Formats: sequence, structure tokens, C-alpha cells
Amino acid sequence: MVGIDPRLGNLPASLREGVADGDYSQIATAFESFGKEIIDVVAPMVAAIKPQSAFFEQLGPAGTVALANVVDHAVEKGLLVIMDGKRNDIGSTAMAYAKAYLGKKPDSAWGCDALTINPYMGDDSLQPFIDRSLETGSGLFTLVKTSNPGSNTFQELPCGSAKLYQQVADWVQNAAQECQGKCGYGAIGAVVGATHPDHLAELRHRMPNTFFLIPGFGAQGGKASDIATAFDSQGSGAIVNSSRGIIFAYEKSEYANASSWQHAVELATEKAIAVIGDAVNTFTAKA
Amino acid sequence: MVGIDPRLGNLPASLREGVADGDYSQIATAFESFGKEIIDVVAPMVAAIKPQSAFFEQLGPAGTVALANVVDHAVEKGLLVIMDGKRNDIGSTAMAYAKAYLGKKPDSAWGCDALTINPYMGDDSLQPFIDRSLETGSGLFTLVKTSNPGSNTFQELPCGSAKLYQQVADWVQNAAQECQGKCGYGAIGAVVGATHPDHLAELRHRMPNTFFLIPGFGAQGGKASDIATAFDSQGSGAIVNSSRGIIFAYEKSEYANASSWQHAVELATEKAIAVIGDAVNTFTAKA
Repeated sequence: MVGIDPRLGNLPASLREGVADGDYSQIATAFESFGKEIIDVVAPMVAAIKPQSAFFEQLGPAGTVALANVVDHAVEKGLLVIMDGKRNDIGSTAMAYAKAYLGKKPDSAWGCDALTINPYMGDDSLQPFIDRSLETGSGLFTLVKTSNPGSNTFQELPCGSAKLYQQVADWVQNAAQECQGKCGYGAIGAVVGATHPDHLAELRHRMPNTFFLIPGFGAQGGKASDIATAFDSQGSGAIVNSSRGIIFAYEKSEYANASSWQHAVELATEKAIAVIGDAVNTFTAKA
Repeated sequence: MVGIDPRLGNLPASLREGVADGDYSQIATAFESFGKEIIDVVAPMVAAIKPQSAFFEQLGPAGTVALANVVDHAVEKGLLVIMDGKRNDIGSTAMAYAKAYLGKKPDSAWGCDALTINPYMGDDSLQPFIDRSLETGSGLFTLVKTSNPGSNTFQELPCGSAKLYQQVADWVQNAAQECQGKCGYGAIGAVVGATHPDHLAELRHRMPNTFFLIPGFGAQGGKASDIATAFDSQGSGAIVNSSRGIIFAYEKSEYANASSWQHAVELATEKAIAVIGDAVNTFTAKA
């Protein structure tokens, strides 16, 4: 999965040309072009994109228009869209977020296939998202153990018989088990950072019916061999995200010989797929 | 503070007229008119509005345009705007959310005075919001103990020497203390639900430098006498939100004699102010 996390300072020069730093409308247009061009390159190679809502929201309504157009373009190209919004609220407000993002257009205004959500508010804040997912055939990824150093602040606190992230993991696993499909996985998945290899293996064992979204591969330091432990013995059960390592590949000396920034994206995507694929194959061969 | 939580089914008939159920653009226009009319009524009476982002996001980009127009209108009318987005992410992504909502336009695309945020991702997910608040003279409200029944799922878990919500409270209090202004309160506040009266008094004591946002008053069951314990001995330290009890007041038999739905909003706002004011005065007189 490729993360669409546009930052003006990192856009290829051709897209930054003529864009004034404080002009949200111009920046939004550049972000939209960038997102669509990445989608055109990676659509034949990957399963999904994950747009980071924050970078578009930062531009105000113009940014959300660009985000919607990027989502539509990905859907047209046959990609799954996992909206990275980390949304959460209670009751009918949670349902408003769920309807906003999950399901097909026009029933859902954004028409995404999955959404990242935050568990802090508890079961009645999570259930509306699950209900909507089951109703529309879409999915969720709940934050369990995130990839940032600060995830230790609360997620690692000992909470009774288990640490907080393990308590959240158990809640998510129970919910996933209750709604598991033929593949053995439920509609509610978990976000588990690639920067915590021990946790990946532990949580794969603890959450047998929970599909994982793994951020932190590449630029954030997660290695393919670490990530492999998050997969099941069939080589399924997880989807790995790479954002900066792919979308800004043209900035790396490794891809200095690429014929264009899009070519660098293509080469970086190919490499990520090969590296992760090899690691998962090695891991499942041992399993 | 009045919460702007528009729901199509509850809008006054005059605003619903001619609006097709699935037409996001028409609904967005109705939400915008509703929000602006409420602001016109309550601007002379209250300090702030709190728009619920979910209800606007549910309408796609058209909804976010309406939301931005509602925010602008409130600013023009001299109200503070607390965006209820419960946002959270890590590092530079958290900063993108912070810049999106906190600060004056055009430096911030949305130009709000405060934002609700979620603590689950830990300190490096909270710090960018604090940095931005201090830089722009805006504020934050971090979820600590929320008003929903499901807040027990994780927030009440015993975590070492304190429950999870107390651990979060201590982190927020420490951060608030570090950046306290002349008033004694810091730029980072806490969301503490009115449906937990014991917690309000306990957390006021535990978090002496932390300003509270109190949801759950009115429709969610929180009583003024319970809420009063969240204020300090000067009658400061907290802001109380009422959404449904005010914006849909026209639906209540109590306001059947109001001359218009706007008049019902005015009467309900007056009543909420009087009831909360009396309870706070009684409480501080005892303190």
C-alpha cells in the first residue's frame, strides 16, 4: 500500500512551479496532481492507497476537494482506498464519520474502502464503525500499537493483567472474531507499527482474526524482516504501508538515474514489493 | 458554548424544505444556513461555538465548505470557535492538523481558536498541538474522561498507580502547568464529560492548571449542579457545551410557545446560562 502524504516542500519541482507558499488553492491543485500521478504509476502494482487526511485538511476546503478527487481517481483505477483519518467520536457522531468515509458513493460521500480509527473513547465509539463496515462491505483499522516513540506514553502502561495496547488488542480481536469472514479475518483490523518488531509477532499471535495495517516501513525505520512476523503462515493477514520512501523516492541518491520522478516512484514501489515479498516468503517457509 | 451538530432530520421545516435526502450539496447549504442563524441568535449571549466536524464531513467536500463558512461567520460575530474534530496523529502529521485548525486565517486554513484532540498516541502526538497553540495563542482540549457509557472500556482501566483517564489527566495537567498564563490555566485543556459528576470534582482537584471543556450537559443527562464542581473557586476554569438541548429546542414542548425556531434557540440558551450560572454561583459561594 502506498501512502499519499503530500508535502509542498517535497513535491517534484514541476509540480511546485508557480505555486505560492500560502495559496491553499494552488497547493491543493498541486497535491491533487501529485496524488493522481502516483496512483497512475502504482495502480498496476499495489492493492491500495492510504491518503493522509491531515495534509489535505491543512489546506481548508480546497484541500478536501483535492482529497476527494484523489480518492475518486484511485477508485477508478481499481485501487482500494484506506482513508487515514484516525477518526473517533461517540454514538451518532461516530456513525456520521463512518457514513462519511465507508461505503460506495453516493451512499457514502467520500466512498472509501476502509478508515483508520482511534479506540480511546471505548466500545460505543467503535461499534458504529463496525456496524457500518458490515453493512457496506468495508473495513476498519483501529490504532493498537502505533509506530511513534511516544506510543509508550499510554499504550505501554500496565493495565491490570495486560498493557493498554494489549487490552485494546483483545477488544479488537474479540470484535474481529465475531465478524470474521471466510478468510478468517474480521472487518475490524488493527494498526500495528513496523517500528515494534516484537509487538508484531506477539500481536499476530494474540489477534488471529485481525488484519493488520503496518505503518512505519521504510522512512520510519521498520525493516522487512521485522514486518514479516505480522503475516500468517499463508503469507496473508497484513498490509504494509510505505509513504515517503515511495512518493518522494526521486529525492534519494539511489534513484538518481530514474528518468523522471514518476519512474523513481515506480522503481521504489517495485523494490518495496520485492523486499517485503522476499521477507514474507522466507518467514512463511520457516513457519 | 453552543454545539453546532446539524442533523437533517432535526432541522426546522423551513430549512429542510426542498432538500433531497441524498443531495449532499443541498444538505450542506441547509446546514450552513442553520449554523449561521444559530450563531446570529447566540452570539450576544455565549462565548463560543463548537462545530462537530463529523456532521459536515459526512457530506463530503460540500460539507467542509459549509463548515468553513460557519466558522467564518462565528469569527465575524466575535465568537470563539472550538473545532470538535478529536484529531490525532504523530509528528509532522499532528502539526498538519494543528496548522489546519489553530491560528488566524490565512496562516491557518480554518482559523479556529481551539481544537479537540485524542491522547492515545502519546506525547509526541500531543506536543505539536501544544507548540502550535502557544505559537498562535490558541488552545486545545484533550479527551480525558468522555461522556459516553463506553468511556469505561479503556479510560477506567487501572493503569499502575492510577486509572487510564487519571494517567492522561496527569500528563495533560503537567503540560498545562508548564504553559500556564496569567489566569493560571495552560493552553492545553481537557474534555471531561458532564455525565460523570464524581470525576469532574476529582479532576478539578487533580488538574488545577487545566481548563475543562464539559460536554454532555442537557440532552446527554448532565445536570448543572453536577457540572458546577468542575469550576474553580472564582467560577472560572471550565466551559460547558450544550448542543441538541439548544439547537433543536424548537422540538421541545417546553418551547412550543416560541415565536420561531430561532426564538426557541434564544430561550433555551438563556435558560442554560441561567441554570449553569446559578449552580456555579451556589457552588463557589460554598467554596
